[in-house]
Amino acid sequence: MAHCLFGHVMKYYPKDPRWFNRDRFVLSNGHACVLQYTMLHLAGYDLSINDIKKFRKLHSKTPGHPEVGHAPGIEVTTGPLGQGISNCVGLAIGAHHLAAKFNKPNFNLFNNFIFCICGDGCLQEGVSSEACSLAGHLGLGRLIVLYDSNNVTIDGDTSLSFTENVIQRFNAYGWHTQTVKDGDKDLTAILQVGQDKSVWEELGGNAESTVMDTARDGLSSKRGGARRWNKVVAMEKFELHFCSYPPCAMNPASQSISASLGFDIFWGSPICDGRVLYVQAIRKAKAVTDRPSLIEIKTTIGWGSQNEGTEKVHGAPLGADDIKQLKAKLGLNPNETFQVPEETRKFYAEVAARNKAEYEAWQSLFSKYGEAYPDEKREIERMFGREVNEQVEAALRDMAKAAADTPASTRVLSGKALNAIKDFMPELIGGSADLTTSNETKLKGEASFSPSSKFGSYADRYIHFGVREHGMAAICNGLYAYGCYRPFGATFLNFVTYAWGAVRLAALSKLGCLFIATHDSIELGEDGPTHQAVEVIPLCRALPNMLCVRPADANEVAAAYMLWLRHSSGPTVMCLCRGNIPPIVGSSVDKALKGGYIISDFSNSGGPQVIIAGCGSELQFCVEAKQLLTNCDVRVVSMMCWDTFEQQSEAYKEEVLMQKERRQGKVLCVYVEAAATLGWEKFFDVHIGMKSFGASAPRADIWKAFGFTGENVAKKVKEALKK
Amino acid sequence: MAHCLFGHVMKYYPKDPRWFNRDRFVLSNGHACVLQYTMLHLAGYDLSINDIKKFRKLHSKTPGHPEVGHAPGIEVTTGPLGQGISNCVGLAIGAHHLAAKFNKPNFNLFNNFIFCICGDGCLQEGVSSEACSLAGHLGLGRLIVLYDSNNVTIDGDTSLSFTENVIQRFNAYGWHTQTVKDGDKDLTAILQVGQDKSVWEELGGNAESTVMDTARDGLSSKRGGARRWNKVVAMEKFELHFCSYPPCAMNPASQSISASLGFDIFWGSPICDGRVLYVQAIRKAKAVTDRPSLIEIKTTIGWGSQNEGTEKVHGAPLGADDIKQLKAKLGLNPNETFQVPEETRKFYAEVAARNKAEYEAWQSLFSKYGEAYPDEKREIERMFGREVNEQVEAALRDMAKAAADTPASTRVLSGKALNAIKDFMPELIGGSADLTTSNETKLKGEASFSPSSKFGSYADRYIHFGVREHGMAAICNGLYAYGCYRPFGATFLNFVTYAWGAVRLAALSKLGCLFIATHDSIELGEDGPTHQAVEVIPLCRALPNMLCVRPADANEVAAAYMLWLRHSSGPTVMCLCRGNIPPIVGSSVDKALKGGYIISDFSNSGGPQVIIAGCGSELQFCVEAKQLLTNCDVRVVSMMCWDTFEQQSEAYKEEVLMQKERRQGKVLCVYVEAAATLGWEKFFDVHIGMKSFGASAPRADIWKAFGFTGENVAKKVKEALKK
Repeated sequence: MAHCLFGHVMKYYPKDPRWFNRDRFVLSNGHACVLQYTMLHLAGYDLSINDIKKFRKLHSKTPGHPEVGHAPGIEVTTGPLGQGISNCVGLAIGAHHLAAKFNKPNFNLFNNFIFCICGDGCLQEGVSSEACSLAGHLGLGRLIVLYDSNNVTIDGDTSLSFTENVIQRFNAYGWHTQTVKDGDKDLTAILQVGQDKSVWEELGGNAESTVMDTARDGLSSKRGGARRWNKVVAMEKFELHFCSYPPCAMNPASQSISASLGFDIFWGSPICDGRVLYVQAIRKAKAVTDRPSLIEIKTTIGWGSQNEGTEKVHGAPLGADDIKQLKAKLGLNPNETFQVPEETRKFYAEVAARNKAEYEAWQSLFSKYGEAYPDEKREIERMFGREVNEQVEAALRDMAKAAADTPASTRVLSGKALNAIKDFMPELIGGSADLTTSNETKLKGEASFSPSSKFGSYADRYIHFGVREHGMAAICNGLYAYGCYRPFGATFLNFVTYAWGAVRLAALSKLGCLFIATHDSIELGEDGPTHQAVEVIPLCRALPNMLCVRPADANEVAAAYMLWLRHSSGPTVMCLCRGNIPPIVGSSVDKALKGGYIISDFSNSGGPQVIIAGCGSELQFCVEAKQLLTNCDVRVVSMMCWDTFEQQSEAYKEEVLMQKERRQGKVLCVYVEAAATLGWEKFFDVHIGMKSFGASAPRADIWKAFGFTGENVAKKVKEALKK
Repeated sequence: MAHCLFGHVMKYYPKDPRWFNRDRFVLSNGHACVLQYTMLHLAGYDLSINDIKKFRKLHSKTPGHPEVGHAPGIEVTTGPLGQGISNCVGLAIGAHHLAAKFNKPNFNLFNNFIFCICGDGCLQEGVSSEACSLAGHLGLGRLIVLYDSNNVTIDGDTSLSFTENVIQRFNAYGWHTQTVKDGDKDLTAILQVGQDKSVWEELGGNAESTVMDTARDGLSSKRGGARRWNKVVAMEKFELHFCSYPPCAMNPASQSISASLGFDIFWGSPICDGRVLYVQAIRKAKAVTDRPSLIEIKTTIGWGSQNEGTEKVHGAPLGADDIKQLKAKLGLNPNETFQVPEETRKFYAEVAARNKAEYEAWQSLFSKYGEAYPDEKREIERMFGREVNEQVEAALRDMAKAAADTPASTRVLSGKALNAIKDFMPELIGGSADLTTSNETKLKGEASFSPSSKFGSYADRYIHFGVREHGMAAICNGLYAYGCYRPFGATFLNFVTYAWGAVRLAALSKLGCLFIATHDSIELGEDGPTHQAVEVIPLCRALPNMLCVRPADANEVAAAYMLWLRHSSGPTVMCLCRGNIPPIVGSSVDKALKGGYIISDFSNSGGPQVIIAGCGSELQFCVEAKQLLTNCDVRVVSMMCWDTFEQQSEAYKEEVLMQKERRQGKVLCVYVEAAATLGWEKFFDVHIGMKSFGASAPRADIWKAFGFTGENVAKKVKEALKK
């Protein structure tokens, strides 16, 4: 499959791995990544045999799963099952949107496809169910998934746990589906498909093509009964796609790439001449433009190995003897390792030449496009260059000014922020997991990204993700990875953990997605503890390379959006409250950009010095407490973003939180946040936080029941001072 | 639907809500819980009108989503979409297993069903896809799902995001499916189904039953065109099921229960005479014993309201006027609130009498069963009583003794523990999400819970969950909620976050599940950061009411299992390492039960006092560091379970970690753990932890690269002492 894609189907240009119109390839079963590394090497990416020899070694380009930023040509980080194929849905949305937005008459600028290889595991994960259901709904014809259906997972045969009819399920989702019955070697099937004239005609092929049978022994004898190897002779218009490949059946070098490279692990299934079948199925999939395509390809895991067809070849090395016999079977020198046959090199040189020509033709088209549509070309380049329009930050400041004096929930202010920047940010695309009104993510005047004119078009950018949080986050990751978008997805903070598998990959892969997380504490009230995040804020703070922001008013919401925009190398979770809160006197856009800052300082009244810090909807209680603590000298601090605060200079941090004085017992540091208290001891002596789950009750009752009032904060300060 | 189930179909006995053989009911779309509270009230559970008036108030029995432990009759906590239906798969596994294990000839002791109502939202969530795919695979005929298919979610019409063919999808999973086309009122459909003679014969019904048409105006005129109301006349053998209900069509009190109770929210769809249809469909579903059943019931959301059929009636109150016109339409007094019509009371009194008879008959059967099978009866009672067999802890101690001297990974030791206790714990049931070998969860000699004799039977208890972590955890929750099981599910620690939506509900609902989480840090090596948990341990520690244990050797693994068994009111995540580690000299089963304890104490050598604490595979580096720090006086502490340690007396905690001396600068406290450092400041001054994601490399290289060696710990201690 990989050889078909890299050698026969996909357009890409290794010298410019970020080519806007390249086809994207994702190996969703990322544990098979040595296959991807092999293909990247053969295809001419900057990945040497030496790099491959360092497979799974420290600081190599070739880690144990494909990680963005290591080898060029890795589009998304995969391995956690279900993520890659779900990312592909985001990549495909990106491809459709870009084409719909920028293509012009005679300028079919963006016409690329998203290709994915996945296995049984990816299709069992809920995240892929969510994303694939949405992909079917959205009719993403640019998405083609090759499903390596080998009926084996780690536990053994899929009959142990996975007997659903995958094709029927994908049909139910609205996908176009095909099956290749014997992906290992059954060339008869080619003829059968070929004889379906409508297919051939649709593809412009010739159904009368001939297939010569060439009797061979070898491989087959072990299984009993002679197998037949077939050599495909030129089929009109398909010549390039398989017959340019040298002596097809006699020395199927492609199938032996892994083996010839000398790995002690034999990944996936060899492709043999089945590639003809795949190419044909892929061509058909490409011809279906109104639906995503799934091609189920029945294969034998570890084909040719002594343990073929069993879970024994899933993760464990084959063993030296097995590799030798396999190489011998494939007509290779069993004693050579890390060798690429000359004919394979030659073949990929031809592929490279073809790709180069295609790339150059596109660049020429893009130049001409620029002459006809200079603004659009500039915009495309700005978006892919990840430059933020200068007007965006100004718009956020304007929003803050306009909203500064009115009590409002931060979710409403977030909605104002989104709407303030959307016209300057065509790269802004996203939506909510069926909580548009609650999350305040409606983009006014924007229709929905949809194949149905009833709701919008592919040129529109509001995405109704449905009740699919995990799929949403994985799709956002794919959108960011597409190269030109700043995607956002929204749900309640509590359900960010439904999506965590994708959120953590955004952080690991340096994807600047925005996850809007409203109803961020017990403050949401009546829905109760099933919906009230308690442990999620500590989780977000524990994850490397992610910002967790909890703004408290309009100024801070503006700053929070600016932090997100500036933090393009990792995701941001923006925690927002449900109910109206008063504007905070002393808040500041610029100061908030430091993550933590002084809202109102000591008066040097002579009373005991107390720093009361908090964030989000609880900051109001810190302010109230100060007013009540007339005998103390109180500083109020907003800790809007711990992560950003931690990045400030030691001097600044000391200035704000006075840790030296704290350690000397000269200042009492108090923290107020309706979240689990894990982590607060770093800076604070007293914490008003959540030591249990919340409860179902109206907001005012909830705040009181759990101690979140100015009065209680003041009381706790007094108690601590007494001690 | 709810009235059909509570009034016509289900067996339950409100005076003994824990009756072993009751049918279980789960409202998966938990946001509609006022419906469930209403039904529990009518059915005679200990839930008064007054309790219902306290809907969504603090400390009420009627929180905003159904929570276990508030109202009796709530089987599982629902609300987070997708969980309830997935719990039902666990409940159904429980029901099948118990029946297969304990039913005897002439003693059909366990013959109950699991009923679930869910909406569109639940079916969009990935977790339900996972669980339902497995339910189909396992052929769980005791599971019947009523799908309230009203085509409306919060964002609006499902055509915005959810157009897949749900029935086709469930067929693909292997479910039995039925559709009720007009769940609101189309009685013609009854006849259509009725005319399918095979259905009637299967159910023992009479296909010649008559339906009288009674022309009526009223409701229908608003929509244009006269509608027809139908009155169903007795059908043989079905009489009880619908005709015992008073004047069916003329005053359909059941459909107006919510309205008659005076809520300002009108939940779901009224049932009208469509109940006949539901009962019939449910009867058919019950007759299908080899597959779970999905009955899609097309309904109009908020039927009868002025906003019926739109998202406006999803979450927002109807408004006073709307409620009045609705009550008038339904023939109720528009000015009365919280009133239950006398005829409804009477009907449910009859239901109660019927249920009582059924309950008493079962108790009598159970007594006779006890005479014939006294051991089995005792075992059933022990399991439902949650008594742990005394031999279990002894077996764990024996395991620890036998394994104490050999280097081993804690995952292997966990496997030994599971196998040591399994014969004394028939309540132990579970498996792995396709990582049986890696997780070491194989139960030796036990076959698989399976409908296929190739793998086992329903009387067996090893569950192959497939690559479905979230579904697995939700299924474990359902199994625990069944009342007699101690379920376990296993995956890598990193993928516990895939399952977090269910894990947190286990904690909230006090379900004593065991989540076995192997490969618990960067130590897993080559798979790399996509598989290496960093933020998960802090997350687990931040969650209320859950134990997160990280044992370091055989003694601690035994203690960890004992902690799990003793902590039956919340889940346990057991973090286990991949590679062999040496036994820890000084470890102790009994001491480890305190969560944190001294492994080797100060020698009072006179050097500076240092406490080096750690847990799991990193404890070895603490021990090594002590050996290297010859100029220091070092105590080594195991922090196997922070949560349990926190529950110890202040005196004990001070004894072990000497926080007073730490604050006075007299002792340096150091913590070593390959996890994000959030939270460590509570007890420690210096932390050797993870400030970034991990990397792909062999274990020894990984440890070294991230500073996890005895040498580096010793070095950091020296540096800190210098400061």
